[in-house]
Amino acid sequence: MYSVTVRDNMMIAHSLRGDVFGPAQRLHGATYVVEVTLFRADLDADGIVADIGRATALLGDILAPYAYRNLDELAEFAGRNTTTEILARAIFEHYAEGVRAGRLDGDTGRAIESLAVTLRENPDAWACYEGAVRG
Amino acid sequence: MYSVTVRDNMMIAHSLRGDVFGPAQRLHGATYVVEVTLFRADLDADGIVADIGRATALLGDILAPYAYRNLDELAEFAGRNTTTEILARAIFEHYAEGVRAGRLDGDTGRAIESLAVTLRENPDAWACYEGAVRG
Amino acid sequence: MYSVTVRDNMMIAHSLRGDVFGPAQRLHGATYVVEVTLFRADLDADGIVADIGRATALLGDILAPYAYRNLDELAEFAGRNTTTEILARAIFEHYAEGVRAGRLDGDTGRAIESLAVTLRENPDAWACYEGAVRG
Amino acid sequence: MYSVTVRDNMMIAHSLRGDVFGPAQRLHGATYVVEVTLFRADLDADGIVADIGRATALLGDILAPYAYRNLDELAEFAGRNTTTEILARAIFEHYAEGVRAGRLDGDTGRAIESLAVTLRENPDAWACYEGAVRG
Amino acid sequence: MYSVTVRDNMMIAHSLRGDVFGPAQRLHGATYVVEVTLFRADLDADGIVADIGRATALLGDILAPYAYRNLDELAEFAGRNTTTEILARAIFEHYAEGVRAGRLDGDTGRAIESLAVTLRENPDAWACYEGAVRG
Amino acid sequence: MYSVTVRDNMMIAHSLRGDVFGPAQRLHGATYVVEVTLFRADLDADGIVADIGRATALLGDILAPYAYRNLDELAEFAGRNTTTEILARAIFEHYAEGVRAGRLDGDTGRAIESLAVTLRENPDAWACYEGAVRG
Repeated sequence: MYSVTVRDNMMIAHSLRGDVFGPAQRLHGATYVVEVTLFRADLDADGIVADIGRATALLGDILAPYAYRNLDELAEFAGRNTTTEILARAIFEHYAEGVRAGRLDGDTGRAIESLAVTLRENPDAWACYEGAVRG
Repeated sequence: MYSVTVRDNMMIAHSLRGDVFGPAQRLHGATYVVEVTLFRADLDADGIVADIGRATALLGDILAPYAYRNLDELAEFAGRNTTTEILARAIFEHYAEGVRAGRLDGDTGRAIESLAVTLRENPDAWACYEGAVRG
Repeated sequence: MYSVTVRDNMMIAHSLRGDVFGPAQRLHGATYVVEVTLFRADLDADGIVADIGRATALLGDILAPYAYRNLDELAEFAGRNTTTEILARAIFEHYAEGVRAGRLDGDTGRAIESLAVTLRENPDAWACYEGAVRG
Repeated sequence: MYSVTVRDNMMIAHSLRGDVFGPAQRLHGATYVVEVTLFRADLDADGIVADIGRATALLGDILAPYAYRNLDELAEFAGRNTTTEILARAIFEHYAEGVRAGRLDGDTGRAIESLAVTLRENPDAWACYEGAVRG
Repeated sequence: MYSVTVRDNMMIAHSLRGDVFGPAQRLHGATYVVEVTLFRADLDADGIVADIGRATALLGDILAPYAYRNLDELAEFAGRNTTTEILARAIFEHYAEGVRAGRLDGDTGRAIESLAVTLRENPDAWACYEGAVRG
Repeated sequence: MYSVTVRDNMMIAHSLRGDVFGPAQRLHGATYVVEVTLFRADLDADGIVADIGRATALLGDILAPYAYRNLDELAEFAGRNTTTEILARAIFEHYAEGVRAGRLDGDTGRAIESLAVTLRENPDAWACYEGAVRG
C-alpha cells in the first residue's frame, strides 16, 4: 500500500462542555498541526499517489473556514464538542468529499481508498481518524 | 477508527546480554520517549477516545517504577533483556491492564480495542508493540 | 557561558487589535510551546546552572494563570495586544522576578545573569525575548 | 505485532516528467529522510525484532548508490519518474531482498513479515510504501 | 532584545567544486529548511517585531528564484560554490535589502537591527549567517 | 558571523551526587543528542566554515569513549558530577583541543573563533556551553 501525507496548521479558539474536560471547559485555543494521509494500492501513470500541490490546496481550503475562528460560533459544530477527535473526523469527512468530487483530479479521486487525518494539539498529545473514502 | 496518543519520557540505565548487542552489552542508558496510542471505533458521549488527563496519568504511573532506575536490578525483568522491544511490550501490558481495570473510567475501559506503544531511543531508532487490549 | 533550557506549553485564546493582524483580529487561539533558557558564567558546587526541577516548576507556575484562558479577559494584559512577542516579554518578567526572589534557591538566584524566553506558535513561526535578570 | 524503525538520509538531484509536476519538472533536488520499519509477530531469543546495527547498515548500503547522485542518470530509474512514492517502493524492494538474502542474519530474515519505507521530502510532505517481504 | 523567526523551505540541485567536498562534488540536491530571525530592541506600537505575514512573504519572494532550480545554472552564483554557508549569506543579503527597502513596512524597516539566516540541510547539519541590517 | 552545526548522539549511564538531584541520584541513563556549532567571521576559499565531514568525524571521535558507558566509572570524571552542563563543557574542551590541533585542517583550525556545545537530554530539557577556542 502506498501513501502520501501533506501537512498544514490552523490556530483556533474553542471551549469544551463536560466535567471530564476540567479547565478546558473554559474558552481557550490551540494550534492544530494537521496531517492528511492518502492511501491507495497502486500509483497512477505519473508515479504518484496524488498531485501533492492539489492535495495540499484541498487541505488548505478545508481548514480556511476554521482558521482564526472561535469554533464555538460555527454552525457546523452547533451542539457538539469540538474535541481533537471530532475535528479530525470533520476534516476527514470534508477531505473524503473533496476526493470523491474529483478535487485531486478524476483518476486520483477514484483510486484513493482511505484517508487518515491526524491533529497534533501539543508536543505530548494528538488524535487521528482513519477511514475509507467510500462508505 | 479513532485514536488518541499521549507522550511522556523516562531516563534509565541498563545492559543487554548477547553478542548481537556489541558495545550495548556494557552498562549504559537511554532517554526513552514513550508514546501510547489508544484505538476505538467510536467516540464516547463527550466526543473523545479517552480523557487525555487520565490517559497521561496512567502512563506516568506505569513509567514511575522505571524512571531513574537501572533496569538490570528490577525483579520484573530478571533473566530477560530490557531491549526497546521488550520494554514496549511491558508498557503495553501494564497499560492494557490499566484500561481493563477502569483506570480511564469504566466506559472507556470497555471501548478501547487496542493499543500501540512506541519507544524512541534516539533520533534514528525506535520500536513499537501494538496489540488488542483483550486477548 | 553556560545555559540550561526547560520547556512547557499552554493552550490559550486571544484576539489582536490592529489592521496589521488581518484575520488574527478575530478571536482565535494558540498552543504556545514555551522555552526558558537560563544563562550564567559558572556552574554551582553541584555542577549545574540551576535545579532543573525547580526551573521547570517555576515555569509551570508562571504559565498556570494563562493556561486554558482567553487572554483578552486577563487584567494583566488590559489595553495591550497579547502578541507572541508581548507574551514572551511577560513570561520573561515573571521568570526574572522568580529568579530574583530565590525561587531557584538563593545561590542560583544570584548567579543567573540573563534569560531568553521563546514562544513557538506554529511550526513556521516563533518569537523570543532575551534580557538581563537585573536591570 | 512488534516493529523496529531505523532512519538515515540522502541528498539527491532529479527532475520529474509530466505537467502535473509543475516547477518540479526542472532539475532540482531533495534531502530525503528515510525510515524503514520492520514488522514481525514475535521477538527472537535475544528479545529483538532485528539487530539494529545490521538493520541500519543494510539501509546505508541501499542508499549509497543514490547518495549525492542525479537520479536522472541512474540506469535503475531509466524511463521512470523518481517520485517520492517510486523511491519508497525501490528502497522497499531492495530492503526486502536484503532481508530475504539473510542480511539481518538468517533467523531474522525468515521472521520479518513486512516492511514500511517512509521518505520525508520536506517538513510538510512525505510518502510511504508498505508491503510483505515475501510475495 | 526581541526577535521573531519565520520558516520556509526550498528544494534545489547543485554541485560543489573542491576536493574537500568528496562525493558532494557530483550533481546532487537538498531540501533546505530556511529560518530567518529578525532582531530589534523594542516593539512597534502594535506590539510586534514585524508583521509575520509580510516577513514570511518576503522570505517566499527571496526563495522563489532558487526553488526547483539547479543552482549551478544561476548567474547569481557563477564562479562560486553554493555551500550552505554561502546560500545563508545570499539569503541574508536579499532579506536585509528587503528590510531596508521597506518591504516589512517603513517603521519596521528602520527598527530591525540584525538578521540571522539558518539553513538546515539534513537532520544532522545546518549553517547560519548573522549580521547587521545596515553596514 | 557564520556558523555550522553538526549533530550526533550517545547513550550513557550515570548517577549524580547531591540532594538537589532527587531521584537522579540513583544510577540511571540518558540519550544525549549532541550539537556542536563552530563560529568564524569569514569563510575559507571553498566557501565553508569547516569541512562538515571532518567536523562530524571529530565529534564522533570525542563521543566514542563515552558511548555505551557508565560515566561513573570513567577516570575523566572522577570526583565530579556528570551533569549535562559538565558534559557539555567536557565535550567543548575536547572539541576546542581538536580544532587547535588541526583536526579540521590547518586553516580552519586557525579561523574558528568559538564553539557552542548543546546536549539535549529529553524533549523538555537541554544544556549548552559556549566559549572561545583560544583562551
